[in-house]
Amino acid sequence: MTFVCLVEHKAVSYEHLFAPLPLKGMILPNRILVTAMVTRLSGEDGLVNQDIMDRYVRFATGEAGLIVVEATAVHRSKSGPLLRLCGDEFIPGHRELLKRMRDAGPSKVALQIIHFLKIARSGWRQTVDMLSRDEIAQIVQAYGEAAARVREAGYDAVELHMAHAYTLSSFLSAKNKRRDEYGGRSLETRMRLPSEVLVRVREMVGPDFPIGIRFDGEECIKGGYGLTDSKYMALRFAQLGADYVSLSAGGKFEDAIKKESEPLYPYTGYSGDRTMPPASYPDGANVYLAEGIKGFVNAHGYHTPVVTTGKISTPKMAEEILRRGQADLVGFARALLADPDWPKKARLGREDTIVRCIYGNICKNLDENFQRVRCGSLWPRDYLHAPLAPDDVAPPVWGSDGAGLAAKLNENGQVRLTWRAALDPLGVYGYEIFRAVNDGPFVHLTSSLTTSHVDEYALTGNRYAYFVRAYDFAGNRSKISNTANIIILPGFAVPEGRSLTLDGDVEAERGFSA
Amino acid sequence: MTFVCLVEHKAVSYEHLFAPLPLKGMILPNRILVTAMVTRLSGEDGLVNQDIMDRYVRFATGEAGLIVVEATAVHRSKSGPLLRLCGDEFIPGHRELLKRMRDAGPSKVALQIIHFLKIARSGWRQTVDMLSRDEIAQIVQAYGEAAARVREAGYDAVELHMAHAYTLSSFLSAKNKRRDEYGGRSLETRMRLPSEVLVRVREMVGPDFPIGIRFDGEECIKGGYGLTDSKYMALRFAQLGADYVSLSAGGKFEDAIKKESEPLYPYTGYSGDRTMPPASYPDGANVYLAEGIKGFVNAHGYHTPVVTTGKISTPKMAEEILRRGQADLVGFARALLADPDWPKKARLGREDTIVRCIYGNICKNLDENFQRVRCGSLWPRDYLHAPLAPDDVAPPVWGSDGAGLAAKLNENGQVRLTWRAALDPLGVYGYEIFRAVNDGPFVHLTSSLTTSHVDEYALTGNRYAYFVRAYDFAGNRSKISNTANIIILPGFAVPEGRSLTLDGDVEAERGFSA
Repeated sequence: MTFVCLVEHKAVSYEHLFAPLPLKGMILPNRILVTAMVTRLSGEDGLVNQDIMDRYVRFATGEAGLIVVEATAVHRSKSGPLLRLCGDEFIPGHRELLKRMRDAGPSKVALQIIHFLKIARSGWRQTVDMLSRDEIAQIVQAYGEAAARVREAGYDAVELHMAHAYTLSSFLSAKNKRRDEYGGRSLETRMRLPSEVLVRVREMVGPDFPIGIRFDGEECIKGGYGLTDSKYMALRFAQLGADYVSLSAGGKFEDAIKKESEPLYPYTGYSGDRTMPPASYPDGANVYLAEGIKGFVNAHGYHTPVVTTGKISTPKMAEEILRRGQADLVGFARALLADPDWPKKARLGREDTIVRCIYGNICKNLDENFQRVRCGSLWPRDYLHAPLAPDDVAPPVWGSDGAGLAAKLNENGQVRLTWRAALDPLGVYGYEIFRAVNDGPFVHLTSSLTTSHVDEYALTGNRYAYFVRAYDFAGNRSKISNTANIIILPGFAVPEGRSLTLDGDVEAERGFSA
Repeated sequence: MTFVCLVEHKAVSYEHLFAPLPLKGMILPNRILVTAMVTRLSGEDGLVNQDIMDRYVRFATGEAGLIVVEATAVHRSKSGPLLRLCGDEFIPGHRELLKRMRDAGPSKVALQIIHFLKIARSGWRQTVDMLSRDEIAQIVQAYGEAAARVREAGYDAVELHMAHAYTLSSFLSAKNKRRDEYGGRSLETRMRLPSEVLVRVREMVGPDFPIGIRFDGEECIKGGYGLTDSKYMALRFAQLGADYVSLSAGGKFEDAIKKESEPLYPYTGYSGDRTMPPASYPDGANVYLAEGIKGFVNAHGYHTPVVTTGKISTPKMAEEILRRGQADLVGFARALLADPDWPKKARLGREDTIVRCIYGNICKNLDENFQRVRCGSLWPRDYLHAPLAPDDVAPPVWGSDGAGLAAKLNENGQVRLTWRAALDPLGVYGYEIFRAVNDGPFVHLTSSLTTSHVDEYALTGNRYAYFVRAYDFAGNRSKISNTANIIILPGFAVPEGRSLTLDGDVEAERGFSA
């Protein structure tokens, strides 16, 4: 029988994560940032609608320090469902959105503004070398006017989208094919339009309004730029008075996978995986970008806050990133989509009730398939938004038969877990699956809405132990299930004097494959 | 006038880099490893020829601790020029090669052995899911027999190629599409064939013969594996008795760019850039892989040496990697191709005479174009191998007119440098270009065989100073040239109270663009 030790950090305080951050006139209540995420919730008209309001009010309830509302077009170009701010008629909707968000919680709110080039279902796409000098001047103008409207609408800050596959990023890109002073032949000329846009936006919003820049620390494509270039970009933005720089990665057209009769979508290739690293990537896979850039910018005498993002899941990890000085703010997209109450729960010492993102990227797949974005891994079916936590302290319970957790080895090396449903008067939300290897500590492996899971990472020669626990809509966890144990023997000869186990005392129980 | 301060570290000793490393019975004289590099120097017959001998004897002269001779086929499949060891008839050539290498220097010598699948000019390629169980058994057999021949031929070690686009790597890959016990559905089944090969090779070479494994720490393709998986692979190899693990990255077919009427070549996409990071990547771009793997393997009680590779250029950086414990050995391909005497020069405190790789990747392009691999950036035209350093202490000198270095700003933001040729009775080999920003230290920017260079990384608002110096075939450096200064003003409005300079006191000299 394996001894189960599961520590719940109810009393941990995250001093760096909850240190307020002054940013121009305003003070962010904590270092947690909701990064701009595409939602596909707005209509073709580009107006703020009820779904948009519900989504962002839900975030505001959760108490993130800064919520960056999704990319909003500065121009009138045709596109799918997308917020717009290319005219004054769009302002009232944003005013209403902000009023409701401020009623819901203490978060500061920024709006991200974007310019993008044309794409066609044929696969054709407009590239920066096709733009005339007049068109470039219009981009500068459109950004300036939209930024003025952002302030007019009552936002606390404006964020300029210079990341991924969009116009300003394509100028910064090492793949910029222009040959003039906005062109790709030198780093300076690649930075010229983004610099002009930042200068114009500053003129339009005034010296006291915070401006953030979101851009790629690394393009993650063949011949793309990396930290060698992006550290200079960050320095330039700092020199020109940006109030924060927020690092993303990848998300480019160059390696996107074309689907028949659909326009090219920039998050479908390797670089798109790097924007939203799936479960197979280590946590914090892109932190090195913020760390490299912050070190460089600080060493040159600028203290512009740097935001890191990309598969950062726990308050503990976020705290550690800040404590080590790798970044000044920690941005989350999927983790806070999964559970918008993450910040509040961490502040209250109730991180044990956080619904943990499993980085299954169903949200990303929905976006790729032009559907409304929701958490398809964790939210109950048919929920368009994260469920609101009810006032409930009673956890789910296992039925009289117990959880009946069983582990079975497949021929192809997977361990298949099955268990019985738990019970809760207000409804069971999901199940967390924990695993221990060779009597090591139990670690959260993943979560599931269903009563089964396949572990593809069990290795021969080792003893595995699993348990599951159910959670309800308030995040209360049930007691843990029975522990299911399995020992896996190698299906090939192990050399004499060698063992595949970590401690060498594995008992034979069952072989693996014929 | 800018004060020039150029420190030459003649007396530095690299204590970690030159610490001997016991590896089974043998002792590597230092921690410097020449990684296996494709040369395209052998004939279609797969025999060791004179060009192969010249290439590796040149490396041996340079005193690297371990030289890994290029990938040599274990099977009889058709391919381009490639060494083979699929029969005893190939052994005598390797015996002769080893004899000459041992006469030339103290390096230990390993042979890398490889199995690859079929590819066609049409774009078709054989994948692992097309292999029968018999064919898989033949792969195990072929590796075992070839490894026995490696020992028979007199090598000090055998290295199993499990990296990039080749057979064993394709089994390890997260893209392995098989569904049986050698398949892609679990990490265990992906590791099964590589495990079987390692076990068989150990049986064939005996317990006292060193076996190294070269594999990808990260695939760097959409849906590929990363450190999350590769740390378990390294642990498995350690458990099965591998004597070192050597980390590469990328080099996959999945993102390769197809050229008409040529078979697909696996280093042409983004993942190929990650195998051999070009100049735009930071130095040591892949060190994090070795660091993550070494930490994991060591924490599990194994002390199998870990090799890191990928754009590590200077002895100082290599020493620092070892001192920090990020790796146990440092592998070099391009840097030691550029100057095979790098290890000897570092040992003698004469790193000031190293011919520095500029990571221009002409070597990689030659390979991609099915041509014999040489250093096209630095070696004199028509040299198939690195020139041998003559016994010469007289450096090149500038003519009576001086170097005449001039810097001129182009419209597209590039600084164009031109200078006069230097003179040397035994011939000038090349020129090194140094740059300082705003009175900071002069840093080596790149090197050139010609008398001009274009700097694409000069930014507005800054003062740049450049000088060049010539070097001869013994690596002796000339006196530095005159210093060429240039100040670049922004071509756009800088906001009041902001400056693009690092110290704020730039004098106007010349504007940039109209």
